[in-house]
Amino acid sequence: MKLPHSFPAMEIAELIKAKISGNESVMLSGLNEIHRVEPGDISFVDHPKYYDKVLNSEASGIIINSEAECPEGKVLFISDDPFRDFNLLTAHFYKSEQMISAIHPTVKSGRDTIIHHGVVIGSNVVIGNHSVIFPGVVIYPNCIIGNRVTIHANAVIGSDAFYFKRRPEGYDKLKSSGRVIIGDEVEIGASCTIDRGVTADTIIGQGTKMDNHVHVGHDTVIGRNCLFAAKVGIAGVVTIEDDVILWGQVGVQKDLTIGKGAVVLGQSGIPKSLEGNKTYFGSPVRDAREKMKELAMIKSLPSIIDKLSNT
Amino acid sequence: MKLPHSFPAMEIAELIKAKISGNESVMLSGLNEIHRVEPGDISFVDHPKYYDKVLNSEASGIIINSEAECPEGKVLFISDDPFRDFNLLTAHFYKSEQMISAIHPTVKSGRDTIIHHGVVIGSNVVIGNHSVIFPGVVIYPNCIIGNRVTIHANAVIGSDAFYFKRRPEGYDKLKSSGRVIIGDEVEIGASCTIDRGVTADTIIGQGTKMDNHVHVGHDTVIGRNCLFAAKVGIAGVVTIEDDVILWGQVGVQKDLTIGKGAVVLGQSGIPKSLEGNKTYFGSPVRDAREKMKELAMIKSLPSIIDKLSNT
Amino acid sequence: MKLPHSFPAMEIAELIKAKISGNESVMLSGLNEIHRVEPGDISFVDHPKYYDKVLNSEASGIIINSEAECPEGKVLFISDDPFRDFNLLTAHFYKSEQMISAIHPTVKSGRDTIIHHGVVIGSNVVIGNHSVIFPGVVIYPNCIIGNRVTIHANAVIGSDAFYFKRRPEGYDKLKSSGRVIIGDEVEIGASCTIDRGVTADTIIGQGTKMDNHVHVGHDTVIGRNCLFAAKVGIAGVVTIEDDVILWGQVGVQKDLTIGKGAVVLGQSGIPKSLEGNKTYFGSPVRDAREKMKELAMIKSLPSIIDKLSNT
Repeated sequence: MKLPHSFPAMEIAELIKAKISGNESVMLSGLNEIHRVEPGDISFVDHPKYYDKVLNSEASGIIINSEAECPEGKVLFISDDPFRDFNLLTAHFYKSEQMISAIHPTVKSGRDTIIHHGVVIGSNVVIGNHSVIFPGVVIYPNCIIGNRVTIHANAVIGSDAFYFKRRPEGYDKLKSSGRVIIGDEVEIGASCTIDRGVTADTIIGQGTKMDNHVHVGHDTVIGRNCLFAAKVGIAGVVTIEDDVILWGQVGVQKDLTIGKGAVVLGQSGIPKSLEGNKTYFGSPVRDAREKMKELAMIKSLPSIIDKLSNT
Repeated sequence: MKLPHSFPAMEIAELIKAKISGNESVMLSGLNEIHRVEPGDISFVDHPKYYDKVLNSEASGIIINSEAECPEGKVLFISDDPFRDFNLLTAHFYKSEQMISAIHPTVKSGRDTIIHHGVVIGSNVVIGNHSVIFPGVVIYPNCIIGNRVTIHANAVIGSDAFYFKRRPEGYDKLKSSGRVIIGDEVEIGASCTIDRGVTADTIIGQGTKMDNHVHVGHDTVIGRNCLFAAKVGIAGVVTIEDDVILWGQVGVQKDLTIGKGAVVLGQSGIPKSLEGNKTYFGSPVRDAREKMKELAMIKSLPSIIDKLSNT
Repeated sequence: MKLPHSFPAMEIAELIKAKISGNESVMLSGLNEIHRVEPGDISFVDHPKYYDKVLNSEASGIIINSEAECPEGKVLFISDDPFRDFNLLTAHFYKSEQMISAIHPTVKSGRDTIIHHGVVIGSNVVIGNHSVIFPGVVIYPNCIIGNRVTIHANAVIGSDAFYFKRRPEGYDKLKSSGRVIIGDEVEIGASCTIDRGVTADTIIGQGTKMDNHVHVGHDTVIGRNCLFAAKVGIAGVVTIEDDVILWGQVGVQKDLTIGKGAVVLGQSGIPKSLEGNKTYFGSPVRDAREKMKELAMIKSLPSIIDKLSNT
């Protein structure tokens, strides 16, 4: 999420009542969770396991619960609870949901775009030309929809990231300030749900087609001309390159990459990154031919064991 | 379901034209299917396999298709079709759906609660304070939503139990008269569906968070601070204790218990009760480490068989 | 899809600027994709693998990218892009979506049918008597709903077929002109999605009951008194005979048949046709008892291998 303008480190420190260390003259212009930071961004880290990753990232300002040494050119905000303080900044800079009316007056929709009855669209949404939004679709604030896009009935675009921190008293939610960006010629099936980025954007690349009941998690980036059959579930922070085909009910775990042109057969479960231009099957997923061989071998095991026993 | 007041057994018998046996002075104050009966309740049984269970339950009145001996302090209603007669009582006492208007005039919603455009809420629903109901959410009559609850777009709360009896001519539906009760600080994802209890309540415990496309069946009781990832499907009459984590696309069969703190990995299928504080994987589910060992062994089977053949 | 009346071959040829071969006097009265053609229909084929199938089908007119010999009594339309030209004909004859208003003035609904608030219904939809359409349901144009049907909240009836042709520049969509036809006494759960036929009809047989989040693909034909638990996903062009039970999260691939009375256990994946009156389990699915035996054998493999090694 971009801040409305650049802020000096001291002003951020005052908002969250944090002590500063490092370069106080750094100017800060964005808020981003670690998986998608750019220079100028404020990020946060509250677990020693991730200190190095965040300290060495592109982030210019880091909210941290340690008196770590500040890398050159950055500024640290020392906090007893970086998660809480990052949420404080989001709450301060991010305008809250505006969707009480059916279509918010700030929504811009292009020529020849059809918005059917029963659609609800939040503030600052932009929809391109020649797109069709079927009844019951809900588009949360700030999302951007391209040209010649079709969104079928009751799909939800831009619901919050499912991102929680466990506290002794229960789960604490990281506030979402990101968007969904949908490219030209995309088709979204009925009752699909596309979560917005927690601080950055969930992106659906040009020409990608999704059947009904597909779920896409926060900050996931999907390439061009992908094809997802019904009931595919994709977690957050996933990268899916161009021309990937996922058949029905495939599940994709978070924080991994599926290479260009990969094909994944129905009901497969993907726990780690996959190379492109191969066909996969199984839960957990494997090369489809190897998996088929394995299934055949298991089927013939009783006779193999029999033979071995009688040797 | 509670009756509007207590009724003498004879009055119930007249409504369903049943013969009475046992204690005619019993007063009856509720209707409940056998999995959740309390003293004062009328229940029903139509299969000899379940006679003992229902006759020995807490139910005070039992509609039964047998001249069974009546346990002390109870009353039996002898019927040639207990399922039909239980439905007759539900139809008599339960007021039918009232949701024609967007928000029924009997709905009570607390201070600082935001109900977005396009929400439809049935009669007698109660919503607490500081809750947010996003567009397109449908809440069926009589449901109760707590404080600081978030329900994302197009979720459905309180749809009918999926509970049918097979007859020669087709399926006969047990009428739903139960509710959904959602505790404080619960978050329900976009397009989730929570069925109401068939006669009792489906309960979501305080602080539990669900991602998009989660389904919860009738009369299921979920504890506090559970976390369900996208596309989890939970059947009816399930008990999930506190702090359970179910990852994406997990399926849970009916009438079982998942113990406190259990973690179930993605795409697992749960056919029977699970002990708490363990991690599980697979369909059907097993201890995750054992399942992983098994998967590794299967992978190396060809070389094991090779070795054995050449001994 | 039926054409408004019969057309001589020459008139069709002019619309798509195709050369004619064969019997020019053939009259053409419908448009159908190859899996469901009748005499009088125009169909199309653009891959040599399917030339024979389409040329020998019931279709009276065939758009084809080859100078094939025309079977007697038929007419061929020679085209460099039959997919494009079939789409041209659909666009010419099929009236575009009409759903801007909540309930289109051409909708006919029977006596005692309840249409709740927030329902959107397209043009030419017909709904029978004693049916209940819960809030947020969207019914696309031309669908037909029977008597005593219940459709729960936020279900979508008649969304487009997921049917694309890969072109060098991306996916090209086959325009949908078909319908959904729902028989008497059907129950459709909350957030189900039933796609319409691409040119013919998706049919749900009398008395069939679906729990929440079920997806049914285009042109699938489902028999009477089937029972589908939550989250079942069924692809396009599937035939499911009467009395089939699919438990939760079952996935069914396209273009296959499930025989009468088959029962498929939860999370199973069905890649090819199944005989009726049997119980199945697994992904890919097998006879349930065989699958259970296999699972038991795998569990005891370590001890079997141990024993064999020590012989």
